[in-house]
Amino acid sequence: MQSPEATTRSEPALVTGVWAPVLTPLDDALGIDTHGAIAHMQWLLRNGCHGVVLFGTTGEGTSFSVEERIALLDDVLSAGVDPDRIMVGTGCCALSDTVRLTSHAAQNGCKQVLVLPPFYYKGVSDEGLYRSYAAVIDRVADDDLRLLFYHFPRQSATPLSAALIARLSERYPAIVAGVKDSSGDREHAQTLIRSFPHLAIFPGSEALLLEGLRQGAAGCISATANVNPHGIRQVYDAWRRADASADASQRAATDVRRVIEGHPMCAALKSLFARFRDEAGWAAVRPPLVPLAESDAQALQAGLEQLGFVLPG
Amino acid sequence: MQSPEATTRSEPALVTGVWAPVLTPLDDALGIDTHGAIAHMQWLLRNGCHGVVLFGTTGEGTSFSVEERIALLDDVLSAGVDPDRIMVGTGCCALSDTVRLTSHAAQNGCKQVLVLPPFYYKGVSDEGLYRSYAAVIDRVADDDLRLLFYHFPRQSATPLSAALIARLSERYPAIVAGVKDSSGDREHAQTLIRSFPHLAIFPGSEALLLEGLRQGAAGCISATANVNPHGIRQVYDAWRRADASADASQRAATDVRRVIEGHPMCAALKSLFARFRDEAGWAAVRPPLVPLAESDAQALQAGLEQLGFVLPG
Repeated sequence: MQSPEATTRSEPALVTGVWAPVLTPLDDALGIDTHGAIAHMQWLLRNGCHGVVLFGTTGEGTSFSVEERIALLDDVLSAGVDPDRIMVGTGCCALSDTVRLTSHAAQNGCKQVLVLPPFYYKGVSDEGLYRSYAAVIDRVADDDLRLLFYHFPRQSATPLSAALIARLSERYPAIVAGVKDSSGDREHAQTLIRSFPHLAIFPGSEALLLEGLRQGAAGCISATANVNPHGIRQVYDAWRRADASADASQRAATDVRRVIEGHPMCAALKSLFARFRDEAGWAAVRPPLVPLAESDAQALQAGLEQLGFVLPG
Repeated sequence: MQSPEATTRSEPALVTGVWAPVLTPLDDALGIDTHGAIAHMQWLLRNGCHGVVLFGTTGEGTSFSVEERIALLDDVLSAGVDPDRIMVGTGCCALSDTVRLTSHAAQNGCKQVLVLPPFYYKGVSDEGLYRSYAAVIDRVADDDLRLLFYHFPRQSATPLSAALIARLSERYPAIVAGVKDSSGDREHAQTLIRSFPHLAIFPGSEALLLEGLRQGAAGCISATANVNPHGIRQVYDAWRRADASADASQRAATDVRRVIEGHPMCAALKSLFARFRDEAGWAAVRPPLVPLAESDAQALQAGLEQLGFVLPG
């Protein structure tokens, strides 16, 4: 197990393991509940996550302004969370925004960034995406930056091709560090692992964790790690120890995921915290997302309880 | 003809006619060329446009930060451009950004805003989009605001249904003012015109201008008005005068558009200014867009010259 104290420094720039794209709890005015967000991160780091991703899709990253994103990261770091255990989502539609968020993260010690491509224009060329990422890296100009591509075609509608990843990795070999593959496509993840052995490949689901690790994946970055960090960490640790329990742990983690992923992910996860912790405010999401219907939230909780699932810590 | 002076005040809040979603010229560092942008707007308003839309898709609106967008609008207004002849694109993924841009526009006299839905999450519900637009209107809290929906499913991948438009129009009858329909679908435009006779419906192409006006459309907001404002205005003016030349003007305007729309729109239009004005810098676009290839730009210019097209003014 990782140290229970979020303030303890982990190995520098070791991007492996189980990472949770953290939920962003909101206040009554749909602003960020900073205190709640920090507490949730610290809880995840105490309960099995090697690290947390701030402002991914599950964290509603694109639903917040650059100022809101900068302010939360500042507060998280002031609270003593280890920057090596934070990966920051920084990819925006505007080059200037992506540069600003990436520079801010890097200058504050968060060298690991997860970068969506600009996602408004559809059908853009690989050349245009190459220029986007190259401009970010050139303008941020930090040799210690570690950039992970965020491939999530179902949301961004802007896939990142293997040719694009190869070209940027060749141009910036020290900076291009990995790919989060949220395609949900097992074969796509396998192809990335085989094609880029020097990069950290993170499938976007723990359902692919054990087989991914056996093939050479770095771990997983999975939304459901927000509620099941300990269960997913067991898969990882058993695999590291070459323990026979790995497959059983994988089946158990996958069972939990299957119950949740039938629902809209972010709203479902937030509804679970609202119910397990009896804090109704946890259920709030920013539009265009909507909270889970009460009946769905009830069914979801019941489905998890049927598996014997309990929220850790 | 409209007054040639951009500083002359037009009729307040009269959202009709030929509007150009203005191109945003860039400097060498891919920042906004403020002087060039203002000059281009003034040129459009002198040469036939009833108004200009700032930060639409053709203006690469989503490629600029909120600060860049606010700064340009401030400079445009300081230069004396009539706020009634400016519609401001303000729709972002983050509710806080959309509220800030919309408030800024309205507080500075630009009451007409063109609002994309939040476009990162795909497959969002009408309820989520309703809450997004309602939150913007409630938070901006300006009775004089005139909101036009920006329906551009090919880029935003977030269509705005007739049911959503009807619900918001009923809830905010004084504020919901119209729709820019960039679907490119003639039947969709006709359905909107029939369904919402109290709203200003703007097809996103002058190819649908004359038939749209005859059915009850307000005009058009068209990318190609950036280069052909006078030709498109002739269609509008002939229709208003019930002049028999309207159909011939429509055919001529459509011919110009057909030559351009075979190319990526923003890059093509910018390349035309670079060539017609002999200012190479005009061709620059922000990634992920890429400038038009030299051979394509040459073919495009030749195609227009074959039609006898010359840039006005």
